[in-house]
Amino acid sequence: MSDGRFAFRVTHQDGRARRGVLSTAHGDVETPAFMPVGTQGAVKGVTHRDLDDAGAEILLSNTYHLYLRPGDDLIARRGGLHRFIGWNKPMLTDSGGFQVFSLAERRTITEEGARFKSHLDGSSHLLTPEKATDIQAQLGSDIAMVLDECLALPATADETRVSMERTLRWAKRARARFEAIRDGNAPDVIATNAGQAQFGIVQGGTVADLRKESARRTVELGFEAYAIGGLSVGELPEVMYEMVEHAVEPLPLDRPRYLMGVGTPQDLVEAVARGVDMFDCVLPTRNARNGQLFTSEGRLNIKNAQYAEDDRPPDPACDCYTCRTCSRAYLRHLFQAGEMNAATLNTLHNLRFYLDTLRRIRDAIAFGRFEIFRQSLHERLSRLS
Amino acid sequence: MSDGRFAFRVTHQDGRARRGVLSTAHGDVETPAFMPVGTQGAVKGVTHRDLDDAGAEILLSNTYHLYLRPGDDLIARRGGLHRFIGWNKPMLTDSGGFQVFSLAERRTITEEGARFKSHLDGSSHLLTPEKATDIQAQLGSDIAMVLDECLALPATADETRVSMERTLRWAKRARARFEAIRDGNAPDVIATNAGQAQFGIVQGGTVADLRKESARRTVELGFEAYAIGGLSVGELPEVMYEMVEHAVEPLPLDRPRYLMGVGTPQDLVEAVARGVDMFDCVLPTRNARNGQLFTSEGRLNIKNAQYAEDDRPPDPACDCYTCRTCSRAYLRHLFQAGEMNAATLNTLHNLRFYLDTLRRIRDAIAFGRFEIFRQSLHERLSRLS
Repeated sequence: MSDGRFAFRVTHQDGRARRGVLSTAHGDVETPAFMPVGTQGAVKGVTHRDLDDAGAEILLSNTYHLYLRPGDDLIARRGGLHRFIGWNKPMLTDSGGFQVFSLAERRTITEEGARFKSHLDGSSHLLTPEKATDIQAQLGSDIAMVLDECLALPATADETRVSMERTLRWAKRARARFEAIRDGNAPDVIATNAGQAQFGIVQGGTVADLRKESARRTVELGFEAYAIGGLSVGELPEVMYEMVEHAVEPLPLDRPRYLMGVGTPQDLVEAVARGVDMFDCVLPTRNARNGQLFTSEGRLNIKNAQYAEDDRPPDPACDCYTCRTCSRAYLRHLFQAGEMNAATLNTLHNLRFYLDTLRRIRDAIAFGRFEIFRQSLHERLSRLS
Repeated sequence: MSDGRFAFRVTHQDGRARRGVLSTAHGDVETPAFMPVGTQGAVKGVTHRDLDDAGAEILLSNTYHLYLRPGDDLIARRGGLHRFIGWNKPMLTDSGGFQVFSLAERRTITEEGARFKSHLDGSSHLLTPEKATDIQAQLGSDIAMVLDECLALPATADETRVSMERTLRWAKRARARFEAIRDGNAPDVIATNAGQAQFGIVQGGTVADLRKESARRTVELGFEAYAIGGLSVGELPEVMYEMVEHAVEPLPLDRPRYLMGVGTPQDLVEAVARGVDMFDCVLPTRNARNGQLFTSEGRLNIKNAQYAEDDRPPDPACDCYTCRTCSRAYLRHLFQAGEMNAATLNTLHNLRFYLDTLRRIRDAIAFGRFEIFRQSLHERLSRLS
């Protein structure tokens, strides 16, 4: 279906929830979609084949990590990230900004960009809106993100505006650089994906008016689509949902909306209810490695002693490899014994649970039953939590 | 083909090399066979499905580890090891003796057995020939091993004889206990596999006459089959091959011979040439986790800088998932980045390489070309080593 250009088509609408198809240079993605996080070009503990089996259609990789190791130059020489890691379906890269703010050492933010020291070897780096665009062009992801400033919450309305304005100036610079690369005017960059799209990011903290203004002014800059950033950073879920609502309102109906770094299954269904189409989050994969399973009845901590002799699958309603072949007793044993297989098996399940939840959401929207699904999900998931 | 009883049939002979079929309560195994090591009920880094794909027909698990955690009582209550871990094909358990000698703390060996403290929590335990038999009956493996004394090399001929005599007395006790359980005269043991077989173990260090005597006298005790233990513990390969030759000579032709804990691909082909049918070894799995790959041209250390931009698969002659989908550059990146996926992908390859080598050995025997295969294997594997 894809001719190599970025496209989006809404196929069903149910309230404000939408079902659609996102087309990229590496194929189509059904939305609402969840993107597993493959930080360093791999989702920790699971192979690409396992991701395929679980139903993943698009993968997220982290620009910060890949820039530092093995380096975007090396990846560009390999023909880009898809070829380097052997994943032939769509991929999104973030800008690296969030990791600079959360992982890097001794960072200083100026109008130029973010200066930081690598958490790996202490080497000095400068990440500018242009540099983040260049790196992603060399990685050749299907969707690149602009560099934005990550505001720490709580923040005053004034602080939030100052940060939002900077993010808008950075977005403008990132777009100019993206267009220069696209139009062949950046000979120092090895662009490895001619079909790459660039998403702008709505900021504005927890200030409703700023969320709206940020969305409106980001749309004026003209990106292929729009993301909502700076949420799920400690604010109450209700505040997050409200901010999503304000951020989505000015966004064009014919472009996908991507809520960055969110969230629990409950968060996903609430964001879909407000018109969001794409998600990424480390919750299913990170929690899996810590022994926490998302199930159709809520969360289950496999390390608990109560599961030592429990012969049931983690989630009797699930059809993943783990639930088909492993008991809670076996998974608990593997976790207690420190076997890396515990991480793999738990991750297979959690990803399947997330991806299957999105599939159910898409089906519910297509059949006009989204509200019923939303209510029943909240009821079911409150049980074991 | 299996009616639940242990059986072995030699189907082809080429020199002293044999091809055959081992039948167990959980199905058949083609021999010569390699058994991946699943220490704690899982092969580190790979799922049972991956083992299936790689061609594994029989798995080895470690009695010492499973006895200490989660405990053979718990596993017996789950219906045995097959059910507990969800592996429905044949399984062999060792006696636990080797781990007591190599892992446990403060061990003292008496005629009664081996007293030791757990390496996990310091608790005291006594592993006797009877106890090792009981534990394995509760685990319900298809093949159980007798407890033997693991003699540290170098040892004098006198020390070797003393140890060999003890191993023979222990073997007699283990067999008596095995028969009591089998015949329903051990009500305190929950035997979970009515078709379990028990293998005796030939010891005798590096003393040719003792190897022969140990084999002859172990056969007199009457086991379903026979293993050769206490080799590959530091002696020269030529010495090991010679000892295998002496140990095999008195063994019955109609029973499989299992060379324990061996070895490199070269070791396997040399042992097959001397009439060995079964192997287990941690080399392919442990070396994979350390970044060493066995390939058709020798060993390859994926962490070497020379592979950073090498777009070739690890082994162009291999059809495993890793070689079909990953470059050396990507595998090196994953290893350098500390991703557990490196362990998984390397292990998938090394197991496939070992299992495929055994398949080629079986084919060579069937077609009367074993000597040609043996020579070409030695020539090929010397290249990258």
